[in-house]
Amino acid sequence: MGKTKNFYLENIPLAEAWQRLVAALEKAGVWRELPGEQLPLDEALGRVTAQPVWAALSSPGYHASAMDGFAVRSVDTIGASETAPKRLSVGSNGQACYVDTGDAIPSWADAVIMIEHTQRGTEADGAEAIEIQAGVAPWTAIRPMGEDMVATELVLPANHLLKPVDLGALAGCGHETVSVRRRPRVAVIPTGSELITVQQAARNGLKPGDIIEYNSLVLSAQVREWGGAATRYPIVADDYQRIKAAVLEAAADHDLVLVNAGSSAGSEDFTSSIVQELGTLLVHGVAVRPGHPVILGMVAGHNKPIIGIPGYPVSCALTAETFVEPLLSRWLGLQPLEKPRVQATVTRKLLSPIGEDEMVRVTVGRVGDRIVAAPLSRGAGVITSLVRADGIVRIPRFSEGVEAGQEVAVELYRSPAEIERTVVHIGSHDLCLDLLAQYLADSGRRFTSANAGSLGGLMALRRGDAHLAGSHLLDPATGGYNVSYVQKYLPGVPVVLMTFVYREQGLIVAKGNPKGIRTLADLTRDDVQFVNRQRGAGTRVLLDYHLEKLGIAPGAINGYRREEFTHMAVAVAVQSGVTDCGLGIASAAHALGLDFIALEKERYDLVIPRVHYESDLLQPLLDLIRGPNLRRVVAALPGYDTTLMGEVVM
Amino acid sequence: MGKTKNFYLENIPLAEAWQRLVAALEKAGVWRELPGEQLPLDEALGRVTAQPVWAALSSPGYHASAMDGFAVRSVDTIGASETAPKRLSVGSNGQACYVDTGDAIPSWADAVIMIEHTQRGTEADGAEAIEIQAGVAPWTAIRPMGEDMVATELVLPANHLLKPVDLGALAGCGHETVSVRRRPRVAVIPTGSELITVQQAARNGLKPGDIIEYNSLVLSAQVREWGGAATRYPIVADDYQRIKAAVLEAAADHDLVLVNAGSSAGSEDFTSSIVQELGTLLVHGVAVRPGHPVILGMVAGHNKPIIGIPGYPVSCALTAETFVEPLLSRWLGLQPLEKPRVQATVTRKLLSPIGEDEMVRVTVGRVGDRIVAAPLSRGAGVITSLVRADGIVRIPRFSEGVEAGQEVAVELYRSPAEIERTVVHIGSHDLCLDLLAQYLADSGRRFTSANAGSLGGLMALRRGDAHLAGSHLLDPATGGYNVSYVQKYLPGVPVVLMTFVYREQGLIVAKGNPKGIRTLADLTRDDVQFVNRQRGAGTRVLLDYHLEKLGIAPGAINGYRREEFTHMAVAVAVQSGVTDCGLGIASAAHALGLDFIALEKERYDLVIPRVHYESDLLQPLLDLIRGPNLRRVVAALPGYDTTLMGEVVM
Repeated sequence: MGKTKNFYLENIPLAEAWQRLVAALEKAGVWRELPGEQLPLDEALGRVTAQPVWAALSSPGYHASAMDGFAVRSVDTIGASETAPKRLSVGSNGQACYVDTGDAIPSWADAVIMIEHTQRGTEADGAEAIEIQAGVAPWTAIRPMGEDMVATELVLPANHLLKPVDLGALAGCGHETVSVRRRPRVAVIPTGSELITVQQAARNGLKPGDIIEYNSLVLSAQVREWGGAATRYPIVADDYQRIKAAVLEAAADHDLVLVNAGSSAGSEDFTSSIVQELGTLLVHGVAVRPGHPVILGMVAGHNKPIIGIPGYPVSCALTAETFVEPLLSRWLGLQPLEKPRVQATVTRKLLSPIGEDEMVRVTVGRVGDRIVAAPLSRGAGVITSLVRADGIVRIPRFSEGVEAGQEVAVELYRSPAEIERTVVHIGSHDLCLDLLAQYLADSGRRFTSANAGSLGGLMALRRGDAHLAGSHLLDPATGGYNVSYVQKYLPGVPVVLMTFVYREQGLIVAKGNPKGIRTLADLTRDDVQFVNRQRGAGTRVLLDYHLEKLGIAPGAINGYRREEFTHMAVAVAVQSGVTDCGLGIASAAHALGLDFIALEKERYDLVIPRVHYESDLLQPLLDLIRGPNLRRVVAALPGYDTTLMGEVVM
Repeated sequence: MGKTKNFYLENIPLAEAWQRLVAALEKAGVWRELPGEQLPLDEALGRVTAQPVWAALSSPGYHASAMDGFAVRSVDTIGASETAPKRLSVGSNGQACYVDTGDAIPSWADAVIMIEHTQRGTEADGAEAIEIQAGVAPWTAIRPMGEDMVATELVLPANHLLKPVDLGALAGCGHETVSVRRRPRVAVIPTGSELITVQQAARNGLKPGDIIEYNSLVLSAQVREWGGAATRYPIVADDYQRIKAAVLEAAADHDLVLVNAGSSAGSEDFTSSIVQELGTLLVHGVAVRPGHPVILGMVAGHNKPIIGIPGYPVSCALTAETFVEPLLSRWLGLQPLEKPRVQATVTRKLLSPIGEDEMVRVTVGRVGDRIVAAPLSRGAGVITSLVRADGIVRIPRFSEGVEAGQEVAVELYRSPAEIERTVVHIGSHDLCLDLLAQYLADSGRRFTSANAGSLGGLMALRRGDAHLAGSHLLDPATGGYNVSYVQKYLPGVPVVLMTFVYREQGLIVAKGNPKGIRTLADLTRDDVQFVNRQRGAGTRVLLDYHLEKLGIAPGAINGYRREEFTHMAVAVAVQSGVTDCGLGIASAAHALGLDFIALEKERYDLVIPRVHYESDLLQPLLDLIRGPNLRRVVAALPGYDTTLMGEVVM
C-alpha cells in the first residue's frame, strides 16, 4: 500500500466528469459504435445489429395456401349454393387440386376452398371430384408472395437488440448469419496487497487485515450483463511497476481498462500517477457518494479509456453503473439503460452532505395507496445494502437531504410488478422473519424488512409506512406484551395483534462464560463490559424493566450507553471480544456458538393494521403463520416456542 | 404430409388447458423446482439459487478501519482542542498506529482518526508522533466485524435470480461456489417434409412449396432467454415412426419436448396420435388465436410433458410464451414473467371471433396525454408483426372485439420508457421513412409507422392517434398537393405541412415490359391485368385523377377492383406474374428489378400538428429532415428529389 497520500481529490460534478470522458473519447475517435462481426443466427440472441438488414428473399416466396383445402379458379365457383352445389374435378390438371397449408398454389388457381367447406364427390366417369355449396372470391385463403417480407425491404434497423422472433425473421427472409456489434472488451484489474481470493479464504480462512477480493467478480458480471466481454485479471499487488505493466498489457487488447481500487486501500496514487504517466488524467474525484474517488483517464498509446474504480464494494458497483454501462451502450449502439422509475414516499429523514450527489439504496413497496421507500444502510462497505435494494434515490448536490414523508423519484432495480407484490415489514427483527420470507416467496410475495426496533415499527405503522410490525414490548405495569403500546401509539387505528413466537431472552456471553456471569447483578462488576440495544428496542425495554425491579442503576453498568441495533450485532460484539455480554435472543447466541443465560420467555407479536390484514396481499403470509410448515421449522430452532403461533391477541 | 385430417380440434379455454397440464405434472411429481448444481461464482450470473445461502464468514471478518488514518484509544484523545492539541506517539505499540482503509484495528485501539485531522509531530526524543486538535468518540471510523454480514446470517434466499452484486455478497461471506437450479432441458423437434434449413435456402434459393424452418431457432432462443437449455433437433420428415423415435429419444434426457408443427402442415395427427400412443393426450386445441391447434400431453414412460406447437410462426412464438415460459419459471423457482402493462387507446376497431381469446400485436406510443395502440397485421404467418410489436392486446373470448378509441390493457414487450420516446407515424408509407427511422434511432427516438394511406393518416391525426402523417394527396381542382385535404379534414387543428420528398409515380411493369405498356390507356386492353391501391391511398387518388382527365372509365380496366395496400405489394404482384402492372413509386419497381414508366412527380409531405411539431420528442426528427445527412442518402435513391426537403408549405 502506498503511504504517500493525495488528500486533495477533485470534486467534479457527475455530468461534467462524464462530459470530459466523452470529449476525450471523441477526440480519440472511439466515441462511436464498435465494428460488426458476422455470426450464425443461433449465436446472435441478445446481440446488437451492426447494419440494417434487408430481406434477401420474399416470405412467403410464392403464393401459398393459408389453409388445408383445394386450390381452385374463383370463376369456376361462381354461382355455387346450398340448393345448387357445384362439382369440380380433382387433380393437378383439374379444376381443384388438394393443397396443405403452406403449399404453393398452382399457377392456374387463384383461390383456396377450405377442406371443411367441401364434400367428396365423383365425376360421371368415376374420377375424384369435390362438391361446393358456395363460391369464393379471388385470393381467398391465399398468403400472397411477400405477405410477410418482400425481398429488398428493411427487416431490422441497425443498433437493434436481437430478440428470439427477430432471429426468426432474419432466417425467414434468407439470412443464415447476421452482422452484430463486436462485444466491448473490458479488462478488470484488481489491485491491493491486502486482497485474497475467495478460494484462498474458503480454504484457509481470513487473517485480520485480509480482504476477500470480489469487486472484480461483480464488475465482470456487470460487464457481461451489459453486453460486454470481461477479462478478469489476477490480483496485482500494490506495486507501481506491476500495476503499470498490467494496465499497458490490458490497454493493448481491450476497449476499456478498469483498475480497482483507485483509492480505498491507498493505491489511488499509483493509479492516478500511472494514468498521468501513460496518458491523460481527466478526472480524479467525482462529486458523488458513494463513489467519490473515481479516476477517469486515457491511455495515450492505445487510445483507450481507463477508469479507476473505488474500492468499497457499493462504490465500485455504482461507479460501474454510472460510467461503464453508458460507455458500453454507446459502443453497442444502444441507448443507456433506463431503470423503471416510481415516485415514492421516504420513510426516514435523510441528511446528505452539500456538494455531492448521493445515491441512497432503498427498499420499496406499496402500502395502501402510497409507494414507500425505506432507506437501507448507507455504508459504502455494505454490499448487502445493494443486494437488498429495490432501487436508488438520488439526493442532488446542493440539497441538504430529504425529509421523512417527502416524495422522491426512485430508480428501480425491480419491475413495478414486483414492487406491487411486496410485503413491507418495519419493526423489531427476529430470525424467524427470514424463514417467513423464504416460505412466502413460494406464493409470489416478496418480504422486505427494516430493523427499526419494536417502537420504531409502531411509529412506521402510524405513518402508514409498513404493512406490519414485529413487536415485543413489555408493559412494566402489567407484565403483558404489546397491547398497551398499541393502544397508546396507534389510537384509532384498527389493528390485529397476532402472536408470532415466544422466544428466550437472556444474556449472551462468550463461549464457556469465562467471566462467570450469572445474573443481571453481575453487569455492575468492574471487570464486566456490557453492550446495550438502542432505545425503543423491546430488548432495551426488557432490560430496563428488570434493572428497575432489581434496583440496579443503569449508570452502574459499564457499556450501558453503547448501543447496537440488532441481536446479531450484540452477539458479534461478544464474539469479537469487544464486550463481555449483552442482552439478546437465544438463537443469536446459538448461531455464533456463544453461551446463553436465559432470563425471560417473551412474546413476539405481529401488529397488522386491519386494512392490510384483510388485503389479498397479506393472505399468503397469514396462511403461512396459521399453517403447519413454518411452525414446524421455527419450532426446530433453539429458543423458540410456537404453541401460540397465529393466535389473535386483539 | 398426412392426408387424413382431424378437423375437429377441441376448443379448451386457455386457463383450463393450463390447469390440465399442471395437474398432470403434479400427478407425475414434476411440478416442482429442479434440483441444484454447484457452480463457481463466476459462472452463476443469471442463475437461480437452489438453497438459501447463509454467511460462511463475517464481513468484515475483524474490526476494520473505515478510513486512512491512525488507530487510537479514544480515552487518550479526550480533551484535545485547537487551543490545546494533544500529542500521541506513533508506532504499533504506541498511542497511535497508522492504518489504511480496510486494515485491522490493533486490539488495544477503539477508534480511528482520519489522517486529514492529524498533524505530524515529534516526541521529545525525536520519535514520530501525531498532533490532534479534537477528541474522538469510541468506534469512530471503524467498521465493526460483521457490519455487512455476520457468519450464519441469511445472505440470499432460495429461488433468487443472481445479479452481479449478489455474486459479490456470496464471495464476501466466504462462498466460492453456489448451488443453483439446473437449467430445464428442452428438446425442440421441427417436423415437416416441406421444410428446408436457412443454410439450404441461402445457398440454393427457394423452390415453390419450400418453407424455411426457423421456428426451432425462435423456440430455442426463447428457451435460452427464459433460463433453459435447448436442444435443437434436425428437421424430421413427416413420418409417424421417425417423429415417434425423435420424441422418445428426446423425452429420455429432456424435461420438456416441443414438437413443431403440431398442425399447420398437416402433421398434427402424427403428433397427437404419437402422444396418445406414448402417454396421455391432455389437450388438442386451445381457445386462443393465433395458436389454436396446440397439443398438450405427457410421455408416460419418462413422465415428461410434451407440447405440440402450431406451425405458423406467430402462433409458435406466442404458444411458447403462453405454455413454455411459465413451465420453465416453475422449474426454476421463479414467478412467471410479468410484462409491464399500460392502458392504451386502440386506434382501429378490432373484430374478434367469439369463443377464442385473441392476442393482437400492436405498436404503442404516447401521443399528447394518451397512450395509443395501433394494431399490426393479424396474420399468424406474419412474423414481422411480432418483430415490430411493442405489445399484445388480449381480446377475451365472449367479447366481439374492441371499438376504435376504446381503452385496453397492453402487455408490453418494451419498457414504458421506450414507449415514451416513440414517434408515431400513421399514413402513407414511403421507403424513405425507413431511412428516417434508422437515423432517428441515433438520437434515442424510436419511430413506428402504420400504413393507412394518406387519408387514413389525416384521420389518425384528427383522432389524436399519431404525431405525424405522410401524405401525397393530389387536389384535382388545383393540381396541388395536401393543402386542401388538410383544410378539409383537419379544420381547426393547427398543423405544419412540411415537404419531405418529391418522388416519381408511374406504372410498374414486368422486367422488359413484355406487354408493351406505355400509357394509362393501355390499362383498358383485354390482355392487360392491372392491380389497384386501396381507397384513400394517394396513389389511388392520382390514378383516378388521370383516368378522369383522360376520360377512361374505371370499369374498363381489368383488376381495377383488386386492391393492394403498399407500393411493395403492388410490385410483388407484378413480379410474381399475378398481374401485368400497377401504379406505384419508382423505388418499389427498382427494388424488385422491375421496369417503370414515369407518369408524374408528386410531392410527399409530412403533416404535423403544431403541438407535436413544437414538442421535444419531435425535435431530433425535424433536425434530421433539415440537416444534410438524410438528404444525401435519400437523394441517392432512384426516383427521389430532395431539393425542397424540410420546406414548410403551410
